[in-house]
Amino acid sequence: MSPKLAIGIDFGGTSVKPGVISGKEIISRLDPIPTREHRGADSLLAAVFRAVASLREKHPGVSALGAGLPGIIDGRNGLVRELSNVPGWRDIPLAALLRKETGLPSIIENDANAMTFAEWRFGAGRNQRNVICMTLGTGVGGGLILDGKLFRGSQLGAGEIGQMIIEPHGVPGHYGNFGALEKYVGNRQIVERAQERYAAAGRAYTLDELTPLLLEKAALKGDVIAKKLWEDLGFEIGIILTNIVWLLNPDRIVIGGGVAKAGELVFGPIKHTIRERTSAVFHEHLEVIPAELGNDGGMIGSAALAVEAAEGRPS
Amino acid sequence: MSPKLAIGIDFGGTSVKPGVISGKEIISRLDPIPTREHRGADSLLAAVFRAVASLREKHPGVSALGAGLPGIIDGRNGLVRELSNVPGWRDIPLAALLRKETGLPSIIENDANAMTFAEWRFGAGRNQRNVICMTLGTGVGGGLILDGKLFRGSQLGAGEIGQMIIEPHGVPGHYGNFGALEKYVGNRQIVERAQERYAAAGRAYTLDELTPLLLEKAALKGDVIAKKLWEDLGFEIGIILTNIVWLLNPDRIVIGGGVAKAGELVFGPIKHTIRERTSAVFHEHLEVIPAELGNDGGMIGSAALAVEAAEGRPS
Repeated sequence: MSPKLAIGIDFGGTSVKPGVISGKEIISRLDPIPTREHRGADSLLAAVFRAVASLREKHPGVSALGAGLPGIIDGRNGLVRELSNVPGWRDIPLAALLRKETGLPSIIENDANAMTFAEWRFGAGRNQRNVICMTLGTGVGGGLILDGKLFRGSQLGAGEIGQMIIEPHGVPGHYGNFGALEKYVGNRQIVERAQERYAAAGRAYTLDELTPLLLEKAALKGDVIAKKLWEDLGFEIGIILTNIVWLLNPDRIVIGGGVAKAGELVFGPIKHTIRERTSAVFHEHLEVIPAELGNDGGMIGSAALAVEAAEGRPS
Repeated sequence: MSPKLAIGIDFGGTSVKPGVISGKEIISRLDPIPTREHRGADSLLAAVFRAVASLREKHPGVSALGAGLPGIIDGRNGLVRELSNVPGWRDIPLAALLRKETGLPSIIENDANAMTFAEWRFGAGRNQRNVICMTLGTGVGGGLILDGKLFRGSQLGAGEIGQMIIEPHGVPGHYGNFGALEKYVGNRQIVERAQERYAAAGRAYTLDELTPLLLEKAALKGDVIAKKLWEDLGFEIGIILTNIVWLLNPDRIVIGGGVAKAGELVFGPIKHTIRERTSAVFHEHLEVIPAELGNDGGMIGSAALAVEAAEGRPS
């Protein structure tokens, strides 16, 4: 029996991506809907409804709908409490709106949790009991599978790995926090640090000349400054993950997002740092590996969570 | 109906404390058995068996037995994998030995987990869904209640809060780790730091003159060096707890052990640090409070876990 068809919708900061999913396969996907073209929630929602209708015309067998959103998402009550970087969304009963409009059993979930669920069910975290998922991009996010279940925390905020502190008196950040990981290894920070280090060595670059991808290529060609930067980034990520390993003793750490594409340049020092700073019990069974589902994890996970909920197995 | 009687045994680094427990009440307790008087596991175990027999003579209604031990304890299989600070204990099937000798349903558990379970069931963490327990003593330990269950981690090592890093290039510690919390706020470290600071101010003290209790009294009398030291300790503990709050979004943090007796001197800066460095969603429902069961938490928790297991509700 093939897995049930469900619609997964990934609400990103800049676009909304809808698709039809069967298990881990994306059967059909529409062009992303740019959020900027829509003022306020109503207009964007109307565009999402049109997308859902068009997907269902092509795939009448769709039996559930799940949406992953960045922010504080109360999946149990189907409420968007707060949407990151998108004004005008506050305490919106989105699951009920989706259900009313489509007639489909509908759920919503935090996007990092949806991605984590997908990696655990279908990707790099499958068959493991305790999985830490981390995404390295503009921001640094995360999700947790603990004792074989998605762990959300008391106010559904768990998994904010990017806010964990590597240097208590370090770079100022959000919420009065100093030295948070995100302020060192977010995409923008990586590029700014590279610019600074090159400038100190008498090599002036604009920020556009220094994407993480270009820095990866430079390091692979032997550029010393780029190589050292990746080592430092891996060390910093490794320190935070070491803390998580001591606290949660997971089986597996799954790392996704653009920066993870640098492969061993960043995975090498991450694994080295964890291994060097934990006892054997904590690291000998631990694997630290790249995410497998790429940018589609959020969409696949949202659909999978919707199918489980529709079948009476809320995750 | 009053709670069932069970024997709880707290295996500490220096002594073993056996008692008869009903719910959270200690009905009867024997003098601690000093571990130093016994060479190897067999001799100590024989003394423990005699203690159990003597307790059962007074309390024939005892229906289960639980032991809490420091180290890597495989409660599911009843094995002591490794005992902290006590040589000669390795892969000992202690639960089976206890069961065979006493005829009682017997379980074993890591002592920090037992303490955590007791505080959650009967103490400062009761009625909460997600509770972080931390003990501040010679070492710094911890335990986790997540989604209303004891969380042990993949190799049963979870909760090592004392090994979490506050300063990646800081004081060297165990397992090749640098800057671990325990190396700053363990009893010995507190006293050494006080000695150093007083010496720098021209006041020479021996280590014996500087127990945490005396430092507490000095701070309460307005001694500037002692006050600043407690602030720093609270800040350091607060940084690690801030990381845990971002990662796990708990309802409650329970802090026990000798150092926690300093009350607001240390709780003040801990709470201030967490509040200052997290968003409202994470701290407005969070309470950070002292443990309620004191040194008896391990004994009470071990007995409670034994009762639950005997009734077919393994925790």
